[in-house]
Amino acid sequence: MIIIMHDNAKKSEIAAVEERLAKFGFQTHPIYGEKKTVIGAIGDKRQIRMSEILLMSGVENIVPIMRPYKLASKELKKEKSVIDVGHGVTIGGNKLAVLAGPCAVEGREHFLRMARIVKAEGANILRGGAFKPRTSPYAFGGLEGEGLKIMREAGDELDMPICTEVMDTRDVELVASYADIIQIGARNMQNFKLLREVGKTNKPIFLKRGLASTIDEWLMAAEYIMSEGNDNVILCERGIRTYETSTRNTFDVSAIPVTQELTHLPIIADPSHATGNYKYVAPVAKAGIAAGADGIMVEVHDCPECAESDGPQSLKPEKFADLMADLKKIAAAIGKEI
Amino acid sequence: MIIIMHDNAKKSEIAAVEERLAKFGFQTHPIYGEKKTVIGAIGDKRQIRMSEILLMSGVENIVPIMRPYKLASKELKKEKSVIDVGHGVTIGGNKLAVLAGPCAVEGREHFLRMARIVKAEGANILRGGAFKPRTSPYAFGGLEGEGLKIMREAGDELDMPICTEVMDTRDVELVASYADIIQIGARNMQNFKLLREVGKTNKPIFLKRGLASTIDEWLMAAEYIMSEGNDNVILCERGIRTYETSTRNTFDVSAIPVTQELTHLPIIADPSHATGNYKYVAPVAKAGIAAGADGIMVEVHDCPECAESDGPQSLKPEKFADLMADLKKIAAAIGKEI
Amino acid sequence: MIIIMHDNAKKSEIAAVEERLAKFGFQTHPIYGEKKTVIGAIGDKRQIRMSEILLMSGVENIVPIMRPYKLASKELKKEKSVIDVGHGVTIGGNKLAVLAGPCAVEGREHFLRMARIVKAEGANILRGGAFKPRTSPYAFGGLEGEGLKIMREAGDELDMPICTEVMDTRDVELVASYADIIQIGARNMQNFKLLREVGKTNKPIFLKRGLASTIDEWLMAAEYIMSEGNDNVILCERGIRTYETSTRNTFDVSAIPVTQELTHLPIIADPSHATGNYKYVAPVAKAGIAAGADGIMVEVHDCPECAESDGPQSLKPEKFADLMADLKKIAAAIGKEI
Amino acid sequence: MIIIMHDNAKKSEIAAVEERLAKFGFQTHPIYGEKKTVIGAIGDKRQIRMSEILLMSGVENIVPIMRPYKLASKELKKEKSVIDVGHGVTIGGNKLAVLAGPCAVEGREHFLRMARIVKAEGANILRGGAFKPRTSPYAFGGLEGEGLKIMREAGDELDMPICTEVMDTRDVELVASYADIIQIGARNMQNFKLLREVGKTNKPIFLKRGLASTIDEWLMAAEYIMSEGNDNVILCERGIRTYETSTRNTFDVSAIPVTQELTHLPIIADPSHATGNYKYVAPVAKAGIAAGADGIMVEVHDCPECAESDGPQSLKPEKFADLMADLKKIAAAIGKEI
Repeated sequence: MIIIMHDNAKKSEIAAVEERLAKFGFQTHPIYGEKKTVIGAIGDKRQIRMSEILLMSGVENIVPIMRPYKLASKELKKEKSVIDVGHGVTIGGNKLAVLAGPCAVEGREHFLRMARIVKAEGANILRGGAFKPRTSPYAFGGLEGEGLKIMREAGDELDMPICTEVMDTRDVELVASYADIIQIGARNMQNFKLLREVGKTNKPIFLKRGLASTIDEWLMAAEYIMSEGNDNVILCERGIRTYETSTRNTFDVSAIPVTQELTHLPIIADPSHATGNYKYVAPVAKAGIAAGADGIMVEVHDCPECAESDGPQSLKPEKFADLMADLKKIAAAIGKEI
Repeated sequence: MIIIMHDNAKKSEIAAVEERLAKFGFQTHPIYGEKKTVIGAIGDKRQIRMSEILLMSGVENIVPIMRPYKLASKELKKEKSVIDVGHGVTIGGNKLAVLAGPCAVEGREHFLRMARIVKAEGANILRGGAFKPRTSPYAFGGLEGEGLKIMREAGDELDMPICTEVMDTRDVELVASYADIIQIGARNMQNFKLLREVGKTNKPIFLKRGLASTIDEWLMAAEYIMSEGNDNVILCERGIRTYETSTRNTFDVSAIPVTQELTHLPIIADPSHATGNYKYVAPVAKAGIAAGADGIMVEVHDCPECAESDGPQSLKPEKFADLMADLKKIAAAIGKEI
Repeated sequence: MIIIMHDNAKKSEIAAVEERLAKFGFQTHPIYGEKKTVIGAIGDKRQIRMSEILLMSGVENIVPIMRPYKLASKELKKEKSVIDVGHGVTIGGNKLAVLAGPCAVEGREHFLRMARIVKAEGANILRGGAFKPRTSPYAFGGLEGEGLKIMREAGDELDMPICTEVMDTRDVELVASYADIIQIGARNMQNFKLLREVGKTNKPIFLKRGLASTIDEWLMAAEYIMSEGNDNVILCERGIRTYETSTRNTFDVSAIPVTQELTHLPIIADPSHATGNYKYVAPVAKAGIAAGADGIMVEVHDCPECAESDGPQSLKPEKFADLMADLKKIAAAIGKEI
Repeated sequence: MIIIMHDNAKKSEIAAVEERLAKFGFQTHPIYGEKKTVIGAIGDKRQIRMSEILLMSGVENIVPIMRPYKLASKELKKEKSVIDVGHGVTIGGNKLAVLAGPCAVEGREHFLRMARIVKAEGANILRGGAFKPRTSPYAFGGLEGEGLKIMREAGDELDMPICTEVMDTRDVELVASYADIIQIGARNMQNFKLLREVGKTNKPIFLKRGLASTIDEWLMAAEYIMSEGNDNVILCERGIRTYETSTRNTFDVSAIPVTQELTHLPIIADPSHATGNYKYVAPVAKAGIAAGADGIMVEVHDCPECAESDGPQSLKPEKFADLMADLKKIAAAIGKEI
């Protein structure tokens, strides 16, 4: 790291900083400019708290040189991770993942019907919510355990992996016993206890970006999971909060190439939650694939106006079919397949 | 609610909307403009999902008329809530609350020393973290149960209520057995399972605003807690995420008068997390009180550079004493006391 | 518009609002709910200031029903505008526009060389800055009049339209005498005097979205230009300001379908300014085209490290050639051509 | 500045960077870490374009050490600037400035009446708009030259300085001939030609923060003005754009202590534009003064519902009187006066 001293830092202050760094095993290399002195410090940052230096007399700022995550970083693992999610499906390779299904599991018949439809149109992973995070305490919260059973039945019938969210540390074991992929929702991206808990399972984790999380914070959340021994993390960009109100969130399309530069983990685009409006789902899904995402997650419902949640952003089966046809062409144009 | 139809909505589309609304017990009042028709609908919104109407043919948008929260709303309870937090202390009245202490409980001796100092300077509630949410999985996570015991001892010795955070549904019972006030941190403001769980306790809840939460979402989080029967919710503005990087977050000072217009719940200002820099803590604390907050939460540490967490934003005891002296004058200037 | 009254609005207050609306020629339609009264008002909103009603006793809020822009709106003109920018090039049709060139015009030889290169690779419009808005007063501000002459020479030699920015009302006449397309930069999107002035020319206007402008504000800026009689406005999405710092701005890809729903004006994607980093330009350009943009504006420089400005986001000619090859395939995949 | 090399940077790449820096007169000090090499470079940054180094092979990033502004910086001038704005009034000293008046100058009689009222209540500078930036091209744009005359008459009659906005380089001479203080509005904070032009006058400049400008960009805008020889710049915080919609903008109260740490220029709080709602003006004004602002700018109108613009955020005279009474007490509490 680099310690930047104030313009008027005294020699004794500089010496004190060097001394403290040395005490923690750092080698120091001061550079004396005309106005400012900076000190390069080489050593193991984990041995010292930043504030221990930052708050010393004469110190203006500290510039870290290394990214804060390790296991998620490309520095550790250069080749891209291809994650086996079961039932013969992988995420991160040349074949794009398409996770589709209704927002919530609303009932057995309905979910099975939707599952068959999305499979027929080319989806290779089923999505659905059994535990639903809802802004209002009075809204439908999901079928919980019953929903998990329904999803499992559909996954088995159609030989497809299922992806579903867990919201509570107490439910991790239950969800892990049914799901092929465990989803951490945007609102729980920094629920650190939950991250640790899913890190202890052997299931791939689908990690949505927090509503207003930076890319660094997101990769630190992945690091939490990986630090417990679970390397199978799949990132999902689902839109960030900005001042613009014409869409529910703002899909950060450049997060796709940025994460691909920083991490070996695959990334999926979720145009449904990003836009909150079925009219914009297809253009944003196409944008995500064209930008290099490893797949999409999209909400499909045969009767959006009857959907228990997120109806306005759900695609009807025929619109989903149109989208899949377009995505196939775009995938081919960039040398991938669906 | 008001249903706004598209410019070219057909008579049959308008009729269909009215019919569906009527089916759910709404009275409808269409208003035919030159270009647009709008339909006023009177009834119980909880009987219908918005999307059921929004996605009908010819519908452009729906404008809700009522706020989504009820128990937290001033419509239900006009007079301000004054919350008894134990040990003779209340929040929401004419006497301002001052919650002070180190970010984390670091050890018995240290916490007791800090507690005595902040009490001597005029704090009336002790704060400290036993369970710490940390961005990095490799950082100090708190003393957990041991930290709770230390806080309780300090609270009892000094006859002061203690406020500490819970991060996991599995720890609610434990934390509730020690704490006078249970804190929900910014990162867990939409951890809905946790909100429900603390709503089942009989302890006052200190609800921090989410990192990028709107005021409406914040009050809906309060509603979650209150919907379980716990009316004792204290709001805490701790800065929101914006594009500005010279402070850790941006303290939203206008959230103080805005919440006071919308809800009967008291609101506390947290200048420490808002700014992330001890230099700006005092001006922002004074701003919060001048704007009408019911108190402040502030981090105090006798050796910020040794602090296990949040050292850079902690006030040294002498700076805390200066701040308290200033706040007393400002409180007096606006007819309150500390 | 809809006037929402407070819960406890008195009959006399409702009557007073209706009376004032009637005075301005509005028809009023009150709807009496259990708790709230709302008043539908039909008439010409331009006859009245909103605040004249909003501030009346008993009024809680006003909800406008119509969008604030007219000329830019699809309500006025349903079919998409195809704008003739000279030299046989149009923007808004099936053939995508590619505006390319260096950020600044740095000299005659260099610009001519770059112009020939980008034309050879398939660009059909030349871009370059003669007047440069720079954050620092000490940075290169452009060749001004000399730069315009160089661009014109290149445009004539290659039979291509040229697009360049104007920053000052005093320069509009000069720029209009050289340029085929006049650019309004992001920082001047709400420089209303400048908008009016370019609205008086007969040149197409390339209107960049403001750094933190909503889509409605952007379309109101277009309305300013159009209200002076110039209908030839081309929108350009160039990234918005958010909290994320890994890119210079956040490219708002959903602005493409959103504007296409609201306005008949064409929209161009600018991945260079959006990302600020050459590594992310190609993925974001592809995303923009896949989402339905009418073209791209991209900075190309044969020696980015020598560029007078915006070097870090400039593509080298060979990378531009690669991008054009990819874009041709994506354009074909969505039924367009380059 | 510090050049950070990639993990795998080759010796030859490091040597090439050092060589180029040396060519521009920099002394270089490489520090070789276990994984990364960083190079400290001492010299005059203005001699080199950042991109010339940033884009070299093996370079990961550059960290500037010095702030980009000089004249506005405390490094150049430590003591706070006290700016003489005429008629015996100064801004930046112990006596707080109160700029008050209607948003727009609407007519001679009205403005004179308002001016007398605000003076009677303790305002010491008159504000009013003769040229009005309006989001809609169809809205009232101000009385222009006629408005300037009216303001001058009021200023002379009451012996008060007047502050009014200029929006166009062509109007600078005219506005400077009437006004005591020239305002640059938020939308023009990066209208660099206008900044240069007002920098050439000898009038104090009232520089509003841009709608979404960082504090660094704001101080660079001040630097533009000062680089033309005009040192009399007064900053004005008027709220920034965030995702929160319950106020028109979010008043960034911490910008007050932050700018006071970085610059010698005084800073004024504008609660009217920050909140957009008269109900929140007083609490935010008090917060600004408590946080250390050098004064406030506030809109006052005797008939807000008749105001040509910004009625909803204007205080009625009696509310302004109440605010002044409160501010006097708060000013006294922090050792200042009004």
